[in-house]
Amino acid sequence: MNAEIIAVGSELLLGQIVNTNAQFISKGLADIGVNVFYHTVAGDNQNRLTSVIQTAKSRSDLLIFTGGLGPTKDDLTKETISKVFQKELVHDEVSLSYITNYFLQTNREMTPNNKKQALIIKDSTILPNDNGMAPGMAFIHEGITCILLPGPPSEMKPMFNKYAIPYLHSRLDVHSKLHSRVLRFFGIGESVLETKLQDLIEKQSNPTIAPLASEHEVTIRLTASHSDESAAMKLLDDTEQEILKRAGSYFYGYDDETLERQTMNLLHKKNLTVASAESLTGGLFSKVITDFPGASSVYSGGVVVYSTELKQSMLKVPDTIVDTHGVVSAECAEWMAVEIKNQTKADYGISFTGVAGPDEQEGKSAGTVFIAIADKNQTHSFSLKLAGSRNGIRERAVKHGFRFLNQLVKEGQ
Amino acid sequence: MNAEIIAVGSELLLGQIVNTNAQFISKGLADIGVNVFYHTVAGDNQNRLTSVIQTAKSRSDLLIFTGGLGPTKDDLTKETISKVFQKELVHDEVSLSYITNYFLQTNREMTPNNKKQALIIKDSTILPNDNGMAPGMAFIHEGITCILLPGPPSEMKPMFNKYAIPYLHSRLDVHSKLHSRVLRFFGIGESVLETKLQDLIEKQSNPTIAPLASEHEVTIRLTASHSDESAAMKLLDDTEQEILKRAGSYFYGYDDETLERQTMNLLHKKNLTVASAESLTGGLFSKVITDFPGASSVYSGGVVVYSTELKQSMLKVPDTIVDTHGVVSAECAEWMAVEIKNQTKADYGISFTGVAGPDEQEGKSAGTVFIAIADKNQTHSFSLKLAGSRNGIRERAVKHGFRFLNQLVKEGQ
Repeated sequence: MNAEIIAVGSELLLGQIVNTNAQFISKGLADIGVNVFYHTVAGDNQNRLTSVIQTAKSRSDLLIFTGGLGPTKDDLTKETISKVFQKELVHDEVSLSYITNYFLQTNREMTPNNKKQALIIKDSTILPNDNGMAPGMAFIHEGITCILLPGPPSEMKPMFNKYAIPYLHSRLDVHSKLHSRVLRFFGIGESVLETKLQDLIEKQSNPTIAPLASEHEVTIRLTASHSDESAAMKLLDDTEQEILKRAGSYFYGYDDETLERQTMNLLHKKNLTVASAESLTGGLFSKVITDFPGASSVYSGGVVVYSTELKQSMLKVPDTIVDTHGVVSAECAEWMAVEIKNQTKADYGISFTGVAGPDEQEGKSAGTVFIAIADKNQTHSFSLKLAGSRNGIRERAVKHGFRFLNQLVKEGQ
Repeated sequence: MNAEIIAVGSELLLGQIVNTNAQFISKGLADIGVNVFYHTVAGDNQNRLTSVIQTAKSRSDLLIFTGGLGPTKDDLTKETISKVFQKELVHDEVSLSYITNYFLQTNREMTPNNKKQALIIKDSTILPNDNGMAPGMAFIHEGITCILLPGPPSEMKPMFNKYAIPYLHSRLDVHSKLHSRVLRFFGIGESVLETKLQDLIEKQSNPTIAPLASEHEVTIRLTASHSDESAAMKLLDDTEQEILKRAGSYFYGYDDETLERQTMNLLHKKNLTVASAESLTGGLFSKVITDFPGASSVYSGGVVVYSTELKQSMLKVPDTIVDTHGVVSAECAEWMAVEIKNQTKADYGISFTGVAGPDEQEGKSAGTVFIAIADKNQTHSFSLKLAGSRNGIRERAVKHGFRFLNQLVKEGQ
């Protein structure tokens, strides 16, 4: 089976947005062993979209569309597919009542064009939209499978994972004899990690070893090919062991695990709480930890003390620290961590201070970062020198904070 | 003239990287009035790439390729184009000596396969690579213009701007007679906005009117076609005026302006400061405002009071409010806003409380949001009912906060 991903939307062709959907879907298909041979983008134009679909039909077995399912006149995907495949469009009552309810619940006016979103290709399987109005759909016609997904990534991604992938598994003999495992590393660069593993990478065959740098982390994807699952697992285990021998200290988890979620789960399991005092990171640590539903069981809150005045008024940072060491210092970070722990009665206080840039501060250059963590016995502080943009420095500082906290919580009783 | 962008590389089809090159080139072409009708991605496979080029040749006048110009065996772009267009590949001495020098200067060993990078399509114009080794090239054959660019964005982008755009200007009567203006709206959905503008959209011709929903906002791109710039501006002005008559209250800015940056600039200009007290949004407001360098002149900090206990201990929210109205209430939001303003001595205090979901809280459903803003005279509160995912609700709540703050600062003296 070979797939083609067709994104529809003039905003892509105008360069207003990037086609991240194609990447997301490609990755998902690679995981279940489906080859993607083409990505195509067409605009909101029926003639050109028609010819794109005809070309795709002639060369691919699985067509995945994203975009053009919305309520407006320039949303043409369903309409065009229905013409090319000569399949009728019908109103779906379930989708219509879902849409009507959506408007009722959110107290918004439902304009008539919204009804268009409940039109579906006859006899197709509906893929529910848990995060928006336009439902997705899937059908097989003369051996060609079509899957229609909405364009906004916040709607498309959950729909793809929750409904499209199971559809592919159930309908199409997609059985992977490929078994993958992702090893996740933080605190080491891709090229350094690759150098440590050079001989393994050079002689790789089964499993294959693919390092990838992403979001300030490095992952290594191991893919073993074997029809017997336990034999595949043995291949993966052996290679993993070899890799961890050389770079185990940077390894923190598998597959979709994140450092942030792992830390939160660990705190939750141990019934511990953390509070934060942020300068450099301006609330990013809080934001990231409260991204998780249920964060309130481990995180009660904290302060963002961006100015020196607030560090002094809210956290009582003494003049001696400000005058002698400056607010960008281990001493200030440690004070902040202890003080926020005490004020909030949390088990851990974590603090971030430093220079995000672009300008230097107190004679310290952009990328100078101090993180401190206070627990009931002592205060640990960490000094980092990070490179990159303002946002990159802030994001990596928070990741390092989670890494240090993770280690301390793991080591704690 | 209509263009097609062809990116070559299996890493795109495997989902390892996003095709940001297509966006960059699309934007650049839109700016000079060239229509892009298709994006295509093909892997490192000569047969499939051949058929992609043949299809592109049959439907587009300008083919822009990125990727596949490197030294390794799977770099096939030049080779395949030379076959399809029946044009010879020849060694270019200038490129070869540039590559040899590059290795000398960086003290690296030049492996024989690097010579391949100096192969160019005969009689093509060379586009120098100021940031890497593989030169780009451009040629016109039977009315079809081909431009070959390298894949790494750090090499492709400067080459495109510095050499490919001037090539297009000089060879191909490309004179920008298209003039665009983006109008930005917040607080109104795409379908409602379109309904308000339906008659304008239906009779649109010059300028064209293209609404787009993105990141919780809606933008409208107006594109006027006229060889005289001031006549084009007049066309844009007239249409803008018509649009603002109907939806002006949701309009906030032009082009790349954001609500967040506008608010920050406004505060800065008026020499005013804001502090935040966040529950629902868990630090996201702080994070967003401190994304901007120089935020410290308008933002001193605030608190994240995620738990009820911290609302009471840090912001002294009285029991009467917690017991009578709950922490998800206008009363609690107002108290938080006033208290953080007073504690930090800022000109404005802004607060966020509500239910991000997925579970309800105090019997209030996910999406219930209260925002309050205290200024020196009074406290304003805003009640919202938002739909969507946990993160979507949090992100939109913050955008609404910026919108309300923006209005109040604008109206203030």
